[in-house]
Amino acid sequence: MPENTMEKPNIVTCTAPVNIAVIKYWGKRNEELILPINSSLSVTLHQDQLKTTTTVATSRSFQEDRIWLNGKEEDITHPRLQSCLREIRRLARKRRNDGDPALDPSVLSLKVHICSVNNFPTAAGLASSAAGFACLVYTLARVFGTEGELSGIARQGSGSACRSMYGGFVQWIMGQKDDGKDSLAQQVEPETHWPELRILVLVASAEKKSVGSTSGMQTSVQTSCLLKHRAESVVPGRMEEMIEAVRGKDFVAFAELTMKDSNQFHATCLDTYPPIFYLNSVSQQVINLVHRYNRHYGETRLAYTFDAGPNAVIYTLQQHVPEFVQAVQHFFPPESNGGQFIQGLPVNQAALSEELKQAIGLEPMPKGISYIISTKAGPGPRVVEDPTQHLIGSDGMPKHTV
Amino acid sequence: MPENTMEKPNIVTCTAPVNIAVIKYWGKRNEELILPINSSLSVTLHQDQLKTTTTVATSRSFQEDRIWLNGKEEDITHPRLQSCLREIRRLARKRRNDGDPALDPSVLSLKVHICSVNNFPTAAGLASSAAGFACLVYTLARVFGTEGELSGIARQGSGSACRSMYGGFVQWIMGQKDDGKDSLAQQVEPETHWPELRILVLVASAEKKSVGSTSGMQTSVQTSCLLKHRAESVVPGRMEEMIEAVRGKDFVAFAELTMKDSNQFHATCLDTYPPIFYLNSVSQQVINLVHRYNRHYGETRLAYTFDAGPNAVIYTLQQHVPEFVQAVQHFFPPESNGGQFIQGLPVNQAALSEELKQAIGLEPMPKGISYIISTKAGPGPRVVEDPTQHLIGSDGMPKHTV
Repeated sequence: MPENTMEKPNIVTCTAPVNIAVIKYWGKRNEELILPINSSLSVTLHQDQLKTTTTVATSRSFQEDRIWLNGKEEDITHPRLQSCLREIRRLARKRRNDGDPALDPSVLSLKVHICSVNNFPTAAGLASSAAGFACLVYTLARVFGTEGELSGIARQGSGSACRSMYGGFVQWIMGQKDDGKDSLAQQVEPETHWPELRILVLVASAEKKSVGSTSGMQTSVQTSCLLKHRAESVVPGRMEEMIEAVRGKDFVAFAELTMKDSNQFHATCLDTYPPIFYLNSVSQQVINLVHRYNRHYGETRLAYTFDAGPNAVIYTLQQHVPEFVQAVQHFFPPESNGGQFIQGLPVNQAALSEELKQAIGLEPMPKGISYIISTKAGPGPRVVEDPTQHLIGSDGMPKHTV
Repeated sequence: MPENTMEKPNIVTCTAPVNIAVIKYWGKRNEELILPINSSLSVTLHQDQLKTTTTVATSRSFQEDRIWLNGKEEDITHPRLQSCLREIRRLARKRRNDGDPALDPSVLSLKVHICSVNNFPTAAGLASSAAGFACLVYTLARVFGTEGELSGIARQGSGSACRSMYGGFVQWIMGQKDDGKDSLAQQVEPETHWPELRILVLVASAEKKSVGSTSGMQTSVQTSCLLKHRAESVVPGRMEEMIEAVRGKDFVAFAELTMKDSNQFHATCLDTYPPIFYLNSVSQQVINLVHRYNRHYGETRLAYTFDAGPNAVIYTLQQHVPEFVQAVQHFFPPESNGGQFIQGLPVNQAALSEELKQAIGLEPMPKGISYIISTKAGPGPRVVEDPTQHLIGSDGMPKHTV
């Protein structure tokens, strides 16, 4: 069909957040449906700092489904993308068959153009697939007029994506059913529940990519007897404790459980055969820094957690941020001519006492950390009303490509 | 008493070996008696390369028990030294009371001078306490005329010392009794059983001392739920498999179990709170090197194991030593003006194919490894008959002090 006869597309744009687990997900009991071997719990990060934006356009003129990620066209036949597209269309069809009058039946046959970008560099090592699939599913649902429970569909794109469907503190209940219908995310508390909580992403200097999480967790399930024990006998109790800590805003309990669970996840990676290492010498130094800082104050003021990479995510309370950031700058002296070391929420200047420096007593690692992103808990996916924010133009094609 | 009236001392000198566990000991159920939470299994290294030498002198002229370690007088009141002295004297008294005519009753009241040296630098990070306490107990037993089962006494000096009381392949059976009487070492096979087996100690460049093993394992027992599971549910099966692999000289089974058990031990260290790191970036690189080398050949030709420090111990078969040593020199280029890179048993020159280098494909880490000690399995403690080797002179004092 020639361009000038192009039917104006229907366009919807949404944003979705990153989440950082404090009780970790590692290991699937069903690879295709993405059903986990244990429940998990995360904090949704604020989209002012970290988000994925996705535009979905539909038009009678589109010949096929297409997708562009960060400006580059990607293969739409990827099984996980296909799962999400298929499940959203199935859900829409079901709603229509159930007699929902709000649904335009013709929309179901339309092809989609999908365009998605992150406002954070891939180098930040944040699990962009969680925000990406959450945003995709949320946006597709708007386009096809399906609402309600969507985390089960996002889960089929990327396991942890289901937790990015809600703001605040979110648990992914593993479920028991073989078809996965009960493996869903659920909000534990909204983002407004604990306003003093702060999150700092410490981006470690670029390293070559380690084992990916999909194949890593497969190998772990197959080879680590400690992982099986963790999933069956340790995590259930920790989920209860963590929910209680979050509800009671008990920072000490929250922080200690967060650190222990991160360590145990990395322990199961090491118990995998061949072993998987995600923590490098910078990560080990951050862990030591946090424990020595806490020990100096005789109080757990900081917690670290690490996903499948060397970057630390620090949880702390607002009042401790300035001094800790100063400590990071002291023990990981940044490049003097580099970019902004602290990004995101503004951080006040603070002095670092000689006493604290000596109590920590680590050898500084110059340039070990590239920059810090300062953020807090935030809301779930949102529709972007401003049409100038659409990533797809009225010609049905991405506005920016690389 | 003036020196010239000194009664000539009775002097005995013995040597004892280092051992390297392939099923690891980590965690005590009784701190004082040194009773472990699981059984373990090790290979005794040959004393031609690594040994402790201990001289014990007794004389009516000695006023008190004294000890010199590596030329420096140390505190004899150390509880573990006292345990060994007390237990050997108790055993001798028991033998005498049981009517052994070979025992001179007067020897029991004599004070001892003990002098002990290692022929390997402490920097090698090898558990010198195992060889040290094994040698002490073995030598004291000769002096006091007590023979027979001594591993239960060595165990009370340092847990793993009990395994250094035998040559070859040795298991330390954890035992069940509260008094520890059944927590003893036992030879599985002598050193002659598997003559092709070779052991390479890869000494990582000096790093500051991490958490000591005594306090480390205490914290692990208190805080790691994975350690408890490992000890109770994983190690018993692994002990059986390992004994079978050793008896059958099944290198692949031996090697894979060795690597898995080392990884699991370090996993429990990471699951400890606060976590303990013994593996550094050099250790991680050695682990990757070994797995990629094995993968290249489609066969498990090498195994690594790590104790409470960053040094790798490699188990392999004789025919693979030259090429692997070449690979180590390639991926850890030594200082050109340094000392001898390869120490111990001679290693033939070998070529390193471009194919293998590319298959391994790691970024070389210059000076990551200081030197290699090449050795094999060896015998248990020995009496040194040559009196010129005594570390104590006829004046009852060490010949060399620092």
